[in-house]
Amino acid sequence: MKEKGLLIVLSGPSGVGKGTVRQAVFSRPDAKFEYSISMTTRKPRQGEIDGIDYFFKSREEFERLIAAGKLLEHAEYVGNYYGTPVDYVKQTLDSGKDVFLEIEVQGAKQVREKIPEGLFIFLMPPSLDELESRIVGRGTESVELIHNRMDAARREIELMSLYDYIVENDNVDLAVDRINAIVQAEHLRSERIAGKYIKMLEVK
Amino acid sequence: MKEKGLLIVLSGPSGVGKGTVRQAVFSRPDAKFEYSISMTTRKPRQGEIDGIDYFFKSREEFERLIAAGKLLEHAEYVGNYYGTPVDYVKQTLDSGKDVFLEIEVQGAKQVREKIPEGLFIFLMPPSLDELESRIVGRGTESVELIHNRMDAARREIELMSLYDYIVENDNVDLAVDRINAIVQAEHLRSERIAGKYIKMLEVK
Repeated sequence: MKEKGLLIVLSGPSGVGKGTVRQAVFSRPDAKFEYSISMTTRKPRQGEIDGIDYFFKSREEFERLIAAGKLLEHAEYVGNYYGTPVDYVKQTLDSGKDVFLEIEVQGAKQVREKIPEGLFIFLMPPSLDELESRIVGRGTESVELIHNRMDAARREIELMSLYDYIVENDNVDLAVDRINAIVQAEHLRSERIAGKYIKMLEVK
Repeated sequence: MKEKGLLIVLSGPSGVGKGTVRQAVFSRPDAKFEYSISMTTRKPRQGEIDGIDYFFKSREEFERLIAAGKLLEHAEYVGNYYGTPVDYVKQTLDSGKDVFLEIEVQGAKQVREKIPEGLFIFLMPPSLDELESRIVGRGTESVELIHNRMDAARREIELMSLYDYIVENDNVDLAVDRINAIVQAEHLRSERIAGKYIKMLEVK
């Protein structure tokens, strides 16, 4: 029987740089993850492409997919839906490949309930001031929205201990190194691979 | 309060190359471990130095230290005692530094009972044939002793699932990379570091 792939869930407060870190993870030449593209009803930001960065959907389409059980998780966040199509994730894990999800904190909680053996990584800002300046620096948000996002961020950070690992995003390259070390280590856990070696003994 | 160091225990069957891997771990320029030197009653092999490779002791001295509770673990293996002085390990962990133990399988079991939160890594030969040829190649053992060691190795490998991680020693450099990834990942576990980040929120 083929060993199942690992589900790696990267989450963290809005503005912490999840998207940037995810892109950097996948830009490494030795990246061995399958990326699960999220679905959203929010408008594409400059440069974002449908089917690459996200599947961009209307509210009606999104709600139809929720009703049909086609989402592993979904959340409404600052007025928009975000979600993860379930079929792709399950098929890819079954084929033995690791799947990398970059999702919001509300969604990560739902994935934990459905796939508790997943690997949950919380991306942490070096400080709250730094987080605020990143949200402001993005330049896409009103003052009120910035306050909302900071409040949401504080609440999200409090959920941090529900995760398996905490990775500080003080530097994108270092954050990627840490994530790669976590994934490499998890593949060496004895409960995952002892069976393979025990077979080796039986052959003798 | 200072975060305690990690206790890293590298073990595995006799002949798998624990000593070679341990030396390679410590020869990396970024190695951040404190090495706990073991005590033994076996005779020094060519090139081994007292107080660097091992503390070489007589049987009488060793038994006196056991009786005085001065060993974290000890084992008798192919007619010789091996053990780990306890004071150094506890003081170093308390000071916040990681301690690296390279010990026999019997001893690792005792450490697990006393320090269950340690990080236990089982070093695995790529195959039993490979293990046998390494033991033979060492050239220090009689045919009978080689048979004894292979029997012991099989029994030791069966204990593998008591460990947290399994690292194959197909290549020393790769084995060291794997060990370093495991240690880096363990330092990012949320139960270890969430407290530090929660303090950050309280400051605001």
